[in-house]
Amino acid sequence: MTQLVESELPEPVLVVGAGLLGTSIGLALSEHGIDVLLADQASEHVRTASGLGAGRPVAAGDTPGLVVVAVPPDAVAEAVVGSLSTGAIVTDVSSVKSAPLTEVAGRVPAHDLTRYVGSHPMAGSERSGPLAASARLFDGRPWAITPHIHAAPEAIAAVTTLARYCGATPFTFAPDEHDRAVARTSHLPHLMAVLVAGQMAQARPVDLALSGQGVRDVTRIAAGDPQLWRQIIGANREAVTGLLTEIQADLARLIQALADDDREGLIGLLERGNVGTAAIPGKHGGPITPDTPVYVAVPDHPGELARLLADVGEIGVNIEDLRIDHDPGRPVGLVELRVADSSADHLHAELQQRGWAMHG
Amino acid sequence: MTQLVESELPEPVLVVGAGLLGTSIGLALSEHGIDVLLADQASEHVRTASGLGAGRPVAAGDTPGLVVVAVPPDAVAEAVVGSLSTGAIVTDVSSVKSAPLTEVAGRVPAHDLTRYVGSHPMAGSERSGPLAASARLFDGRPWAITPHIHAAPEAIAAVTTLARYCGATPFTFAPDEHDRAVARTSHLPHLMAVLVAGQMAQARPVDLALSGQGVRDVTRIAAGDPQLWRQIIGANREAVTGLLTEIQADLARLIQALADDDREGLIGLLERGNVGTAAIPGKHGGPITPDTPVYVAVPDHPGELARLLADVGEIGVNIEDLRIDHDPGRPVGLVELRVADSSADHLHAELQQRGWAMHG
Repeated sequence: MTQLVESELPEPVLVVGAGLLGTSIGLALSEHGIDVLLADQASEHVRTASGLGAGRPVAAGDTPGLVVVAVPPDAVAEAVVGSLSTGAIVTDVSSVKSAPLTEVAGRVPAHDLTRYVGSHPMAGSERSGPLAASARLFDGRPWAITPHIHAAPEAIAAVTTLARYCGATPFTFAPDEHDRAVARTSHLPHLMAVLVAGQMAQARPVDLALSGQGVRDVTRIAAGDPQLWRQIIGANREAVTGLLTEIQADLARLIQALADDDREGLIGLLERGNVGTAAIPGKHGGPITPDTPVYVAVPDHPGELARLLADVGEIGVNIEDLRIDHDPGRPVGLVELRVADSSADHLHAELQQRGWAMHG
Repeated sequence: MTQLVESELPEPVLVVGAGLLGTSIGLALSEHGIDVLLADQASEHVRTASGLGAGRPVAAGDTPGLVVVAVPPDAVAEAVVGSLSTGAIVTDVSSVKSAPLTEVAGRVPAHDLTRYVGSHPMAGSERSGPLAASARLFDGRPWAITPHIHAAPEAIAAVTTLARYCGATPFTFAPDEHDRAVARTSHLPHLMAVLVAGQMAQARPVDLALSGQGVRDVTRIAAGDPQLWRQIIGANREAVTGLLTEIQADLARLIQALADDDREGLIGLLERGNVGTAAIPGKHGGPITPDTPVYVAVPDHPGELARLLADVGEIGVNIEDLRIDHDPGRPVGLVELRVADSSADHLHAELQQRGWAMHG
């Protein structure tokens, strides 16, 4: 995909909030030689981000051309209103778009609102804060641009250029379209993971000995920060409630199908799950590459995995993905190499010939 | 953990059903020199399993000492009843234990029932059939042994010995206790993943461009075989319905908290999710080793990952887990190395010194 940077960014760019996202944006822009200013209520975040090369602390007299608001959801509208008063183009990078827009629109004159275009990069990390930042956080990721109908073309262009400078792929959504989309792809899965995890919190510990990889995958994101997620879900209450109500109806149908021993009804629900998993695009929104797992038992000490992958490299097969099923109590780990369908048999045979313990 | 094999297995062992589980059991027992007989409605499965070294086809006149029933859930009770008529000790390895026991108890004399002890190894694969089998499938995994109150001690001992020969760790549960445990740790997460995936099936494709890793993890298991899962869920209807009813109440509370903008209520639900994820034990039921992620950007062609891991090996750090965030459209993949907390800073510094592009 060609990712042209169509227009120049109005410099300097002021990043408000030097956490994971703000600092990563500062790093990416700085790599392109853009003049970046940094602000944060916590001055140590500005010092850290600045020390990492994400920009310089904003000073009195600086007049930004573009302000990027990267603060927690509850603080976004206030920060956007303040930023618009500088005369700059303003965007924010928070997870929900309609609620802050409505609040901002109620607080600034119409001609100022034209300079605000919200956006939302689909990137993050389990870690937070400036030390977790990276210039490559947004590489190849979707970045939703969510202009309102009064947005100035030059403001939309500036925010689109920002996304491209960060290496992301811009997608345009109306703010409410965006919120309905992420309610489905992000907020609903999060809340369902939370409800499933909640049932594990009530389990007898001995029962949890029977946990497999499935429940671990389903509940992983439920470990997220409750304060942050309260703000995200709270800001998108309407769309989230709509989907939760649909789930409520699906759940009632499921319980009824079990009560009636309705096998066809249950099969229908399970098949719809198959359709849904197939509909989700691959990582970074790209197409899913068909791949095949090849399993190898690998002795669990330094260097063995390297020796395996050196062999894979010599065989000339590229690894699409790799997972280790590792147990501290076992002398070997099981390594799952995912490779192109066409390479799997060849790799399996070649590794076996080199003496690796193939599994399956 | 010392895994003593306390008693001898009553030989020969007949495995009924030469699929993934049955063939894997045959392979594991054969490695210990146990005489294994194989039976399957599909004769090609017996040929394949036998060719892999899982045992020999059962023949007229063979009198097994132990029968392991490894057939789909709906066929378990019938196969157990048939197997008890041979006079052998009988177990099965299916996912639900009460329903087949009740059916078997209604069809055989009480003195025959003493020879039946159900069990359930917590192991599987995305693949099925004898070609996916491995002698190491059960290594270090929990294996639930579920004796009823009339079970003969020698039958319990034989099934426990079977689990240990397969390298698994036996845990004893009453059949209904087992079913309630897996309803929570396996069947509930599966059905919730199915409901979330069902909502993706109804999404506009453009909205799914905003899918991140979270929704992929939550929905992964919803790709499972609907026919198999219909049988599993159907056989455990009571326990599953109980938990679904609890989820229904949790969901109603969540919707009400959103309607009331009840921030404390929402925080409470999210925090319970945190508690639940922390309660789930690590892989194989072992303790979770505290580890820290170290991120490295790796050029996406053969050999580069090997070069990285060779460096990690030279640095002397053991990798607990590894994931590749790989996009066919990008020239680099992001590799997440999980290492012991105490090694992370050292590894980060050493890799950076060797010229690797560290992320974060």
